[in-house]
Amino acid sequence: MAPRVMEVTNTEGEWVNRGERPIYESDWVNLVLADVMMPDGTQVDHHVVRMPNQAAGCVIVHDDHVLLLYRHRFITDTWGWEIPAGKIDPGETPAGAARRESIEESGWDPGELTPLCAFYPGNGLTDQQFHIFTSNSPTHIGAPADTNEATRIVWHDTDSLRALLVNGRISDGLSFAAVSFALATGAI
Amino acid sequence: MAPRVMEVTNTEGEWVNRGERPIYESDWVNLVLADVMMPDGTQVDHHVVRMPNQAAGCVIVHDDHVLLLYRHRFITDTWGWEIPAGKIDPGETPAGAARRESIEESGWDPGELTPLCAFYPGNGLTDQQFHIFTSNSPTHIGAPADTNEATRIVWHDTDSLRALLVNGRISDGLSFAAVSFALATGAI
Repeated sequence: MAPRVMEVTNTEGEWVNRGERPIYESDWVNLVLADVMMPDGTQVDHHVVRMPNQAAGCVIVHDDHVLLLYRHRFITDTWGWEIPAGKIDPGETPAGAARRESIEESGWDPGELTPLCAFYPGNGLTDQQFHIFTSNSPTHIGAPADTNEATRIVWHDTDSLRALLVNGRISDGLSFAAVSFALATGAI
Repeated sequence: MAPRVMEVTNTEGEWVNRGERPIYESDWVNLVLADVMMPDGTQVDHHVVRMPNQAAGCVIVHDDHVLLLYRHRFITDTWGWEIPAGKIDPGETPAGAARRESIEESGWDPGELTPLCAFYPGNGLTDQQFHIFTSNSPTHIGAPADTNEATRIVWHDTDSLRALLVNGRISDGLSFAAVSFALATGAI
């Protein structure tokens, strides 16, 4: 870890990361404490969750309807509608992960994928990035291989999507942002 | 921690959290390992980041323009446009935090706040929730008290907001979701 002296003067508004000390390391999540100099010269020790794997998801469109999975999340103890999504495995592309997760979780192969958007879900805490794609030519393969990810798989039209968003039935940030963005920009 | 026996049979699709073991605790972030039974009976040890504080932000509208801050994020080493937002302090309401952060970061008091939406930014990892409000009657107070949070403070019309979203200039998930949702639902 870099010595905690105030040798950096930053008048450009950049927060300078002068080094990170590991707190906990694993294949799933890493927690570190970063030695940070803020623009006004204040030093802070800032927790950072560094994720070994980013995540990818897919807005699958078929006859002007979007495929959503209804599922439970134990961390928040909530139920809600989500697009197929999951962790990008080592060596996998974001699009490859989005396609694999769609097939595993829904039984639909999205086919050709188009990048829709990407964002950092919590850039004040973690470096994880979400990569979202769209598909307009899905193919039904069969029952989902992974039965843990959804209790219902339903196609929703855009009126239904707006209602689900407004009523808090899409509370998963990845899905909330992806569906909102797709509606806001005319992608669906 | 609960004994790791398979006494729970769950046919309803719920992921059952049978107990959590702390890995790291602090006022800013807690990391635990949860003993989870998935719907098909598979047991997993699942990392969870439990946040002592949720976050709140505000879409401030004035003459059909939305206030955005241009700022650096050291965790992702990215620059982007964001709405005023931040941690909810102990004893503070989400709306109170959104108002305080707006004043501190932008110098604009949002005045009356209306709930816009709420979501979990990463429900596969953390229990943190984001609470977003809108304001249509902001008042300029003066220069921001916190000079670390923005290098530029600019009002954007809806065409500009869509362009920033599409071009990846709003990469902060909280802001990305809030602005997309507001556009998708006609709130702005």
